[in-house]
Amino acid sequence: MEKILQEAILHGQKYTHNGNPASYIPELQKVNSSDLGVYIRTLDGKEYGVGSYQQKFTIQSISKVLVLTLALMDNGFDKVFGKVGVEATGDPFNSIVRLELKHLQKPLNPMINAGAIATTSLILGKGGNEQIERILDFAKLVSDNPHISINEDVYHSEVQTGDRNRSLAYFMKSTGVIEEDVESLIQVYFKQCSIEMNCQDLARIGALYSNNGICLKTGKEIIPKSICRTVMAIMTTCGLYDASGEFAVNVGIPAKSGVGGGILAAVPNKIGIGVYGPALDDKGNSIGGIEILSYLSDVLDLSIF
Amino acid sequence: MEKILQEAILHGQKYTHNGNPASYIPELQKVNSSDLGVYIRTLDGKEYGVGSYQQKFTIQSISKVLVLTLALMDNGFDKVFGKVGVEATGDPFNSIVRLELKHLQKPLNPMINAGAIATTSLILGKGGNEQIERILDFAKLVSDNPHISINEDVYHSEVQTGDRNRSLAYFMKSTGVIEEDVESLIQVYFKQCSIEMNCQDLARIGALYSNNGICLKTGKEIIPKSICRTVMAIMTTCGLYDASGEFAVNVGIPAKSGVGGGILAAVPNKIGIGVYGPALDDKGNSIGGIEILSYLSDVLDLSIF
Amino acid sequence: MEKILQEAILHGQKYTHNGNPASYIPELQKVNSSDLGVYIRTLDGKEYGVGSYQQKFTIQSISKVLVLTLALMDNGFDKVFGKVGVEATGDPFNSIVRLELKHLQKPLNPMINAGAIATTSLILGKGGNEQIERILDFAKLVSDNPHISINEDVYHSEVQTGDRNRSLAYFMKSTGVIEEDVESLIQVYFKQCSIEMNCQDLARIGALYSNNGICLKTGKEIIPKSICRTVMAIMTTCGLYDASGEFAVNVGIPAKSGVGGGILAAVPNKIGIGVYGPALDDKGNSIGGIEILSYLSDVLDLSIF
Amino acid sequence: MEKILQEAILHGQKYTHNGNPASYIPELQKVNSSDLGVYIRTLDGKEYGVGSYQQKFTIQSISKVLVLTLALMDNGFDKVFGKVGVEATGDPFNSIVRLELKHLQKPLNPMINAGAIATTSLILGKGGNEQIERILDFAKLVSDNPHISINEDVYHSEVQTGDRNRSLAYFMKSTGVIEEDVESLIQVYFKQCSIEMNCQDLARIGALYSNNGICLKTGKEIIPKSICRTVMAIMTTCGLYDASGEFAVNVGIPAKSGVGGGILAAVPNKIGIGVYGPALDDKGNSIGGIEILSYLSDVLDLSIF
Repeated sequence: MEKILQEAILHGQKYTHNGNPASYIPELQKVNSSDLGVYIRTLDGKEYGVGSYQQKFTIQSISKVLVLTLALMDNGFDKVFGKVGVEATGDPFNSIVRLELKHLQKPLNPMINAGAIATTSLILGKGGNEQIERILDFAKLVSDNPHISINEDVYHSEVQTGDRNRSLAYFMKSTGVIEEDVESLIQVYFKQCSIEMNCQDLARIGALYSNNGICLKTGKEIIPKSICRTVMAIMTTCGLYDASGEFAVNVGIPAKSGVGGGILAAVPNKIGIGVYGPALDDKGNSIGGIEILSYLSDVLDLSIF
Repeated sequence: MEKILQEAILHGQKYTHNGNPASYIPELQKVNSSDLGVYIRTLDGKEYGVGSYQQKFTIQSISKVLVLTLALMDNGFDKVFGKVGVEATGDPFNSIVRLELKHLQKPLNPMINAGAIATTSLILGKGGNEQIERILDFAKLVSDNPHISINEDVYHSEVQTGDRNRSLAYFMKSTGVIEEDVESLIQVYFKQCSIEMNCQDLARIGALYSNNGICLKTGKEIIPKSICRTVMAIMTTCGLYDASGEFAVNVGIPAKSGVGGGILAAVPNKIGIGVYGPALDDKGNSIGGIEILSYLSDVLDLSIF
Repeated sequence: MEKILQEAILHGQKYTHNGNPASYIPELQKVNSSDLGVYIRTLDGKEYGVGSYQQKFTIQSISKVLVLTLALMDNGFDKVFGKVGVEATGDPFNSIVRLELKHLQKPLNPMINAGAIATTSLILGKGGNEQIERILDFAKLVSDNPHISINEDVYHSEVQTGDRNRSLAYFMKSTGVIEEDVESLIQVYFKQCSIEMNCQDLARIGALYSNNGICLKTGKEIIPKSICRTVMAIMTTCGLYDASGEFAVNVGIPAKSGVGGGILAAVPNKIGIGVYGPALDDKGNSIGGIEILSYLSDVLDLSIF
Repeated sequence: MEKILQEAILHGQKYTHNGNPASYIPELQKVNSSDLGVYIRTLDGKEYGVGSYQQKFTIQSISKVLVLTLALMDNGFDKVFGKVGVEATGDPFNSIVRLELKHLQKPLNPMINAGAIATTSLILGKGGNEQIERILDFAKLVSDNPHISINEDVYHSEVQTGDRNRSLAYFMKSTGVIEEDVESLIQVYFKQCSIEMNCQDLARIGALYSNNGICLKTGKEIIPKSICRTVMAIMTTCGLYDASGEFAVNVGIPAKSGVGGGILAAVPNKIGIGVYGPALDDKGNSIGGIEILSYLSDVLDLSIF
């Protein structure tokens, strides 16, 4: 397995020079753009890592998966999907157009920024501090890593450049999708994006979803099976921004990317994968990370189709 | 298995009164809107049918699956996906807006009308007659039914009311996506939509995709495996119009619906399913058909997630 | 002339019951919706008023005319029209879609909210307090009324319900159209909307534009002629939201409406008119006010066409 | 006056090298792109011409003015404006997006292609031949030139490249805006665009509108005054595609441009102007023609504002 992972990294390295780190958040540019790492956890508990798999990065949009899961556990399907839909958009992640065109009802899905902000607003807790604490605790729980924390430098960098997200949030406030204070909500959102993990953390989270929410160590249910399936379905249709369809066709694995360079992947009933590569393509996905997953999907026959 | 199918039909019957047959094609309204049928073919060759599974109906948008498959076999991935994308839209099936907004490049995917018309234009053949003949032959081949034919009444009904599709085709002609004569192309498109099948035909087609394109009877490859997987991925992300995401979440099976009331479903490596129920929901999907598939997915654990 | 104005009021009264006061700002609903007033100032200095012409109301979007004028005087044509265009939109006043679709360049014109907010950001002054003070001073100057002030109740009412405008402002901040602090800017914007005037004030302002910016009393130039013409042209093409074209066809007078119920009208080289009627049509224009202006345009032959 | 016109031409010549002839209709490229002509007719019957004012060109979108006028005379205001609106769009002339977004109701105005095609469908006459004959007769009447004819080469060139217009027409057919046969209608539309005139013809038409529809020679009413005013208002708000607002601000004269290089201008109660210059800016307006009109507006004080 380790040899396959090494080949996957070699394959991915052919592509990293075509990408660039995220430029809109200054702090995210301070990376080595040729870094690549991959980590796998199988459902019988084995783990394999190659490359920069210990390198920490902020999870950014991958947090949308965790927050959607927690929001569903907090509120149930009806309440969450009354606020946010589950349809893919074919739009860039920060588009505002469809909010207005779709009759102001609700964001199209929880994997675009508008939908994610609306989802975050549903996390239980008295005020923003309690909300982000609960999100961080949940991140620790699902990654089985009590040392997960928020990268304060990235968080402050997000705060300064997050005007498009503020615009989305105020728009939804004006249409009633969001009820709470926008600035408090947006701080929680920036903080969840700034949670720091490595490939190992992502692989363990992926394995938990793959295993229908049952902890591999204890056998206890951490996430209900129906929520795991729902989240993996949404990852499949909406997980890679407006390249989600292409990824489904070429790779065929439920996955979620973040502009920090990470991708969380969960092959149902098989394995969890974490990849990292901060060089992004023009849609905001890790260019080497996609190639690694594509390679592994082919060699290990991981496609769900 | 037959008992399960009967229960599925009973479950579906609770919903048919909430839907209506397609109204925009006059001929499609001449149906019994409470009809429901289901047919299953397993990969070990067993078949089960319950309800109106012998009832013929026009496949309408289900033809998009067949034509995409044939276009890929005729032209290869690069040529086809140079003309049409693979991203879901969240738009109704007949929307023209995104063609213009997305910089005139290409239709977002082959499961919306614009993308399907562009795909049809890639079917090899001298003129429209040869194109539709090849499509019909392919339909006979994959359904293992030499008696498949075109419903002329529906075809003529489509011709008269197909102005939105003509608009889409002329738009793409003006932007260079389509090169051939629009009126000839649109006739092929209307004819492929008017191909008549029953649930048994759909189930056998579904089983062929489930079996990665290998004929269950002869063991011969009818469709290359990579094309089967690609088509099933696109069915998953775009197969039920702007309810594709909801279907992925609730049912989790690659499927394609048509406004004639049919749904073609293919569970990878497991079974093929054909359902029929002409009462449609407001997005154009068989309301009872979706419920039958949802029931079967739960009971038989068919979700790919 | 007074008889004509009385007839105009009688004509307008036939329509007020079809409209309603603005509902989205709570404070604006506290009006008598059957009120109607009209005031005229001719360029030879005569003035006539009938109906509720002394009734004060907040000028709301009429402030866009004053702020555009002051921004042009502060910055010149090139700087202002580098930030905001001059094309009509056919969109509702608070639409955000076109900001994104039009390649993020700049708001289409200074009479829609996005364009007005961008225009306000160009008003010279150290901070929001100095900006709004300069706007208020300019309002006093052009209306020749030193008692003009801000209605604090309406201002506080705007602040609470102004999330759509905040969304527009943050969007423009994210694209670089706006550089200053959004919350400070938006306070200035809400305050300029809450400036209180009556029909007499509006008529005097209108007469100043009609007279190419030359004060009727002193003969001094208050606004350069080229700016007056530019502003009257923009009032003609964009002054009544997405009913601007209809108003140009039916009335043919440069005018600007506000959801407070006022309309400022300026007939080039002839007269200035102020009308008031808080019952609005579904596009946000005073329903009786439009009818009064339509009546006067016919009887006094005021159309510029 | 002739000296002023010569200076205007000299002024315009500084800009022609920045533009290009229309490229989307092959036949329109066969012009001398540095040609410039201007012709003026005053309401006391004097006429002045300078430059290529005898050069014939196809009127293209200028036909929209004639057809709107004739449609209003044929059907009255209510019927015409029940089919097509009067709001400017800020969109390019051939945009289809707003047709769909604006709830399929009706094209925004008769000066964009969609609205013009809908207007043409209202011209009385048995079939396309009679319709185009009536339009041509009307063109001869208003230009006082019985030799006006259709340029067959351009017409055939339009037919071949008119797929975007066919798309617009079929879209409107599908939504019920248009009831007649699309191909017949589109032929009439292409023919009206191919009507050939020179600057003199345009100036005389302009003078007729300026004179409220009263023939300068006979004193007879050719077009009702209310229709003249309506058409001049629509020219002001929508006459130069998505540069209409800019033209209103900079020039301030009701005008309509065509991609053949002509501009028809009508200064109410003053003069009619025809200009020609086939080098177009990127919005499809004669780049030299606009400059000539801008120069004349300044020197002769022609702005209506």
